Amino acid sequence: MGRILWVNPVGSDAFDAETAEVIEGVRSPEHEVVIRSLADGLPTHLEYHLHEHVVFEPMLELMREAEADGFDAAVVGCFYDGGLRELREALDLPVVGMAEASMLFACSLGHRFSILVGRRKWIPKMRDNAITVGIDRRIASFRSLEMSIPEMFEDPAELDRRAIEQSLLAVEDGAELVLFSELVPATLVERAAVELPIPLLDPGVACWKWAEMAADIYRRTGLGHGRAFGYEAPPV
Amino acid sequence: MGRILWVNPVGSDAFDAETAEVIEGVRSPEHEVVIRSLADGLPTHLEYHLHEHVVFEPMLELMREAEADGFDAAVVGCFYDGGLRELREALDLPVVGMAEASMLFACSLGHRFSILVGRRKWIPKMRDNAITVGIDRRIASFRSLEMSIPEMFEDPAELDRRAIEQSLLAVEDGAELVLFSELVPATLVERAAVELPIPLLDPGVACWKWAEMAADIYRRTGLGHGRAFGYEAPPV
Amino acid sequence: MGRILWVNPVGSDAFDAETAEVIEGVRSPEHEVVIRSLADGLPTHLEYHLHEHVVFEPMLELMREAEADGFDAAVVGCFYDGGLRELREALDLPVVGMAEASMLFACSLGHRFSILVGRRKWIPKMRDNAITVGIDRRIASFRSLEMSIPEMFEDPAELDRRAIEQSLLAVEDGAELVLFSELVPATLVERAAVELPIPLLDPGVACWKWAEMAADIYRRTGLGHGRAFGYEAPPV
Amino acid sequence: MGRILWVNPVGSDAFDAETAEVIEGVRSPEHEVVIRSLADGLPTHLEYHLHEHVVFEPMLELMREAEADGFDAAVVGCFYDGGLRELREALDLPVVGMAEASMLFACSLGHRFSILVGRRKWIPKMRDNAITVGIDRRIASFRSLEMSIPEMFEDPAELDRRAIEQSLLAVEDGAELVLFSELVPATLVERAAVELPIPLLDPGVACWKWAEMAADIYRRTGLGHGRAFGYEAPPV
Amino acid sequence: MGRILWVNPVGSDAFDAETAEVIEGVRSPEHEVVIRSLADGLPTHLEYHLHEHVVFEPMLELMREAEADGFDAAVVGCFYDGGLRELREALDLPVVGMAEASMLFACSLGHRFSILVGRRKWIPKMRDNAITVGIDRRIASFRSLEMSIPEMFEDPAELDRRAIEQSLLAVEDGAELVLFSELVPATLVERAAVELPIPLLDPGVACWKWAEMAADIYRRTGLGHGRAFGYEAPPV
Amino acid sequence: MGRILWVNPVGSDAFDAETAEVIEGVRSPEHEVVIRSLADGLPTHLEYHLHEHVVFEPMLELMREAEADGFDAAVVGCFYDGGLRELREALDLPVVGMAEASMLFACSLGHRFSILVGRRKWIPKMRDNAITVGIDRRIASFRSLEMSIPEMFEDPAELDRRAIEQSLLAVEDGAELVLFSELVPATLVERAAVELPIPLLDPGVACWKWAEMAADIYRRTGLGHGRAFGYEAPPV
Repeated sequence: MGRILWVNPVGSDAFDAETAEVIEGVRSPEHEVVIRSLADGLPTHLEYHLHEHVVFEPMLELMREAEADGFDAAVVGCFYDGGLRELREALDLPVVGMAEASMLFACSLGHRFSILVGRRKWIPKMRDNAITVGIDRRIASFRSLEMSIPEMFEDPAELDRRAIEQSLLAVEDGAELVLFSELVPATLVERAAVELPIPLLDPGVACWKWAEMAADIYRRTGLGHGRAFGYEAPPV
Repeated sequence: MGRILWVNPVGSDAFDAETAEVIEGVRSPEHEVVIRSLADGLPTHLEYHLHEHVVFEPMLELMREAEADGFDAAVVGCFYDGGLRELREALDLPVVGMAEASMLFACSLGHRFSILVGRRKWIPKMRDNAITVGIDRRIASFRSLEMSIPEMFEDPAELDRRAIEQSLLAVEDGAELVLFSELVPATLVERAAVELPIPLLDPGVACWKWAEMAADIYRRTGLGHGRAFGYEAPPV
Repeated sequence: MGRILWVNPVGSDAFDAETAEVIEGVRSPEHEVVIRSLADGLPTHLEYHLHEHVVFEPMLELMREAEADGFDAAVVGCFYDGGLRELREALDLPVVGMAEASMLFACSLGHRFSILVGRRKWIPKMRDNAITVGIDRRIASFRSLEMSIPEMFEDPAELDRRAIEQSLLAVEDGAELVLFSELVPATLVERAAVELPIPLLDPGVACWKWAEMAADIYRRTGLGHGRAFGYEAPPV
Repeated sequence: MGRILWVNPVGSDAFDAETAEVIEGVRSPEHEVVIRSLADGLPTHLEYHLHEHVVFEPMLELMREAEADGFDAAVVGCFYDGGLRELREALDLPVVGMAEASMLFACSLGHRFSILVGRRKWIPKMRDNAITVGIDRRIASFRSLEMSIPEMFEDPAELDRRAIEQSLLAVEDGAELVLFSELVPATLVERAAVELPIPLLDPGVACWKWAEMAADIYRRTGLGHGRAFGYEAPPV
Repeated sequence: MGRILWVNPVGSDAFDAETAEVIEGVRSPEHEVVIRSLADGLPTHLEYHLHEHVVFEPMLELMREAEADGFDAAVVGCFYDGGLRELREALDLPVVGMAEASMLFACSLGHRFSILVGRRKWIPKMRDNAITVGIDRRIASFRSLEMSIPEMFEDPAELDRRAIEQSLLAVEDGAELVLFSELVPATLVERAAVELPIPLLDPGVACWKWAEMAADIYRRTGLGHGRAFGYEAPPV
Repeated sequence: MGRILWVNPVGSDAFDAETAEVIEGVRSPEHEVVIRSLADGLPTHLEYHLHEHVVFEPMLELMREAEADGFDAAVVGCFYDGGLRELREALDLPVVGMAEASMLFACSLGHRFSILVGRRKWIPKMRDNAITVGIDRRIASFRSLEMSIPEMFEDPAELDRRAIEQSLLAVEDGAELVLFSELVPATLVERAAVELPIPLLDPGVACWKWAEMAADIYRRTGLGHGRAFGYEAPPV
């Protein structure tokens, strides 16, 4: 039995129940999940990069503890993948980024896919991440719902409606798959199954299963990210 | 309990035991593996693309049977990923390519990695695959052992020696990780752990765990490759 | 007098007359063409990649015979260029792919060009081919008529109408040239000359002339594709 | 008279004198420079990305004060450009990254250039930055002196010697220019002028002059980085 | 006090007053500008590349004189950057291209930007320039006003109207900044400030300040473009 | 019978005999060649881009006359392809660049190829051309003989020797084909056939046959380069 830490790096537990539900839908009994969010007072969502900065230290703290406790992997539960480079420099255990993992997995499911974002604000960093990962050529388009995280919470039906609408436009862009940049609500999963001609990938699903894969490989073979150069740790 | 079909698409069972061993090292008890190779008389290795062509039909047959039997995923056990496009056009269940899966997984383990090949002959198609996947920018170099598959069988110690030698050159090329384009023999795993400053990734390990991931997602959520366009099946 | 084999790799001679007509329009008297299609019972068109697989062996057979007979080049008469890699591994004589040749020729005629396809289904493989060839940056857009091959046969006037319509949209995409992914019917050639502000390139024309070029160079200088690495033949 | 803040984002003033000297060598009398480093106890160099994280907040604080004081631009005095995205999200005034500015300037001085780094550790993030900026195609090579920042301080003559040595290798790589990833010591400037066939660009020089350019444009026309999307500020 | 030569490479002084005005708006008192246009009878605008060719020789003559007179930099005042390679081969002093300089500067102001052109005719060469510079990935779109240079002169209000219109479409394309490929008229500067949500960059402003930067570095440190390879001068 | 003009754009007929010989080796009887060089006093070789500029006007004149005389195509007989854009703007008949044509043809002969140049000086412009054409990913390496054109004339045996030497190094770089950037002397053709494991492509051969192809298509179908946008002619 392995353990994986999933950090929702926000000062609110508002996402934790949905996260648990998404994970439970695909979790292998071999892996236990521990979901953690951060202390009150920290940003409650990470639409702004300055907020990503603020939550880095407490997220690192949680992961350091997890490593010390013998966890097998840790997940950055945010589609900006903020701090991935620094976390891999600090830690031996696999650190999984929700965007990196789900974009790489999506590459095996269709020739090109589109990424649905909440607001256009999100696109530049997400596109830069795709470019750094290298798979920007596989992205048919970014499509924006033009809803902030708080607006999504307030009007989940509108979120579903716009996600369907933008996904259909993504089909016109040549996407064979749509990747949402947030966990996909259960109501949207249902609508998508009926209304979309192409699959809708939940990054939470992809990221969790990726974490199980990385955790198993790490625990059983010792192989994790290479630490000879870019991820070399600071001297103690 | 899910089942995954691993096809060694050659007319010989010479690779099956090593395959089983590699898989057993990382297999989740949740997934049963069925390893199949092809009928005598078919090519015993696939260094030549014409040979890949010849083995496609029997490989497809095995996978069609697996799909009919309710398997959850199927693996092309060859680093050329021959026939991946056609198999995904034919089948609903996830089809996992050893190169595609291990290259994508490697992208999460280091900024750039090198690929060890047996002979230079192999490089053009493998590089084209990396380009099509999109991650060619992540490849530090291809390094060739200049040994054919039969030569590797004949002199496994020399294989290990050259793999170490070329891996050390890959470090000079800027690789943070080395990906071998064949299953990594247990003796080489041991030497690499001692002699290399960077990890050596076994594509069999990565590919098997990827198959478990894809199988679980497919079985539990129904999501597989998108079949609206490029992977649309021929009419019956 | 040289001879070039043009294979329409389908189990039907339905395309042969139009092929002959297109070739006759530009054929040099120096080169004789032999047009061959395949046996009844084989797929009558290649919209599906599985069908490409099925026709490979008989196409190879025809080309092997042609090589033995002293032909100077052979043409894969399909815009998917299916089997090009394998054919070049098998054969010394130049093997010309309709898409590869016409895309490379198009690069000399305009900064960016668009490719008209029958159905969206075709785009992923064709785009992958463009990426592998390397000239994807030169493609302004793919534009789909949303007609299958059988539908094109049934309603040629509608084919012409949609081709003009999509070509005009390609102009908006920035194309200086349109490349059709099928032979261009004579009626469309006429309409295009009048109704389009940019040239419409027939891949049959480009591919045939390319074959003449490759055949002449091969016959007179011996130079064909390099066979030291990727195209190295299997041992006999 | 405009003012530009140059932050050496380390907990040491060890770089400040050299910085002042480099800037004075090219400073326009129109621009006053204020050089600031950070409080004792913070990392004294930034070879590790975790250290970059630690110094971000105090660097932001200095820049916020500068903006409030009416400064015209601010400089991140480190070749990793750490926090550039976040700083531009926080601030209206131009924020100049040493790597971004000097790489973009170098693009106007030669077709390809090489970047000299202290240790291989530095390359992955610097290459990722070059990829994100987009000019990776312009980089002939990264060349490493294999000296840490402390080692450079301890043995400046060896630093010069290795910089010359690696620059000469960069010429073999096709570089028309060498860009050092640290301020160039005066002794190295002298040796380079005599011993190198190609120019050696000091990123401090390029970055300072870029800051003057950006500051002037900002002060006189109001134009700075676009803040409608990626650099949109968090709500107050 | 340094001197910079700005050449409007056309046989008309019609652009000189506006050029002077744009430069005066941002000129540092440290740099004197000398604006020169060419002899009557030469093309009065450069929409056609053949015209670029015709004006090269007299432009080179002016720059050679400037170099002999001790000028510190020279500017090609045309967004095609015609002759930049040849000028840098001929001259030691920095030669600044309006497109190259403003595109590189724009890269520091937003993740992606759009370029407004007069006519679609202009796009292929400008895109090729962006590709050669390397920053094509940073371009959200090219947007055309469909007005020739003479038409712009005749109807400046329509120019402003269309520039606003196309800039708003560029926002939809994901641009965080718009770069005009001509000097921006004062009336358009005003309208843009009010009507656009993103900045409008005048290439004249960017290019002039870039020239000051290059001139200062050249005068004070001797560093200019590398002349060992591509820019090696012909023997005298 | 068609006619093709081949311009050796230098003020010397020193290359004309060798050009004629190369062309005769592969010429179709259908096409007559007219080889022209330029007036005495013009540069005798084009290693410098300023020289390319000087010869443009007389080269254009020759091609205008050819077009008026009903020629079917014109060739720029220099591997820099100088003036290709301008010539296509001026002329309806196909204008063939030696580098563009031979690089595109080479793409059909091997996965990656190397380009042999005389001096490193040549590489930046040739690489920029490859980037603009789009096929830079297909180039394994540039390899330099470090001989100027005059030195090649003086010591042809040394030219052959170095070409063989550098071609063998190109094999190590992964080239499946070598493309020389000058006409290949007959002596070198012979040595290459014996001493190289990969083909050596003469750009004169490829370019001439390409010109025949383009000429035939132009004469028989009217199709040439698209002139709606980038190649739109100046008004008369």
